[in-house]
Amino acid sequence: MDDTVRMTGVLDPRGDWEATSCSIARALEVVSTRTAFLLLREAFYGATRFDEFVARAGASEPVTAARLRELVDAGLLVKEPYKEPGERTRQGYRLTDKGHDLLPVLVALMQWGDRWEHDDDGPVRLQHTSCGASVHAELRCEAGHRVGRGELELAYNR
Amino acid sequence: MDDTVRMTGVLDPRGDWEATSCSIARALEVVSTRTAFLLLREAFYGATRFDEFVARAGASEPVTAARLRELVDAGLLVKEPYKEPGERTRQGYRLTDKGHDLLPVLVALMQWGDRWEHDDDGPVRLQHTSCGASVHAELRCEAGHRVGRGELELAYNR
Repeated sequence: MDDTVRMTGVLDPRGDWEATSCSIARALEVVSTRTAFLLLREAFYGATRFDEFVARAGASEPVTAARLRELVDAGLLVKEPYKEPGERTRQGYRLTDKGHDLLPVLVALMQWGDRWEHDDDGPVRLQHTSCGASVHAELRCEAGHRVGRGELELAYNR
Repeated sequence: MDDTVRMTGVLDPRGDWEATSCSIARALEVVSTRTAFLLLREAFYGATRFDEFVARAGASEPVTAARLRELVDAGLLVKEPYKEPGERTRQGYRLTDKGHDLLPVLVALMQWGDRWEHDDDGPVRLQHTSCGASVHAELRCEAGHRVGRGELELAYNR
């Protein structure tokens, strides 16, 4: 069975073009390190303070600081000052809309890891707040169909 | 609005546990470099031969060879010998089920790049073979609901 993505129109044959402005490549220019993904995971889990990111993402303080700065520069996190009683004002970090929009990537990575690195049952489970059912990332077309393997084609947009 | 993932049961408070066997982290141990993701993209687009991967993923021959080897070792690609007329037998590469299962991650990265690095309109578009409608990665629960921002909670599985 050929279940690769079928090329259509000017994209066929594939050898005639290069993916020079590929959105996957551009996304990976913005978020490209394992630590960056884990810091985003922690932001989704509610971390805001530098010491929380250090404690939970498993990187050293300098590496955590450098990656957080890159995520702020790329517009995925925004700095937000906070002050605890008796302490000086510090910088916290909060997800922007651009950062939030990466959630499907993280959920898709999690379900892949659950399936292939944990025998289908990871340590934690994402569930839908309103009904409690498990949540996963899936491919759907705008007509609402679930899109299975071998049912994808690529078209040129310009 | 608090639209982070809500912690439930023993996961609350978040400060009491560490994500030591996190499936996202494990997935990123397997596929962690930008080049690895771009090689997988090319495999989804139908590349099988080493020279195709070199020409289209933008990495040098030694880097391409090293990343392909890692993807084979991790079980995402499998080697498949092929022979063109008048040439010696060479090794090609084909996605395994484990590799195929990363497609939602790549689609989610693509749509993020389309939206945030290309003003909503990337150079190419994925469409559903049978109906032609655009394809995207989305979050759904097993009850079939679309899961929106702020509607996720995390539960312990053990």
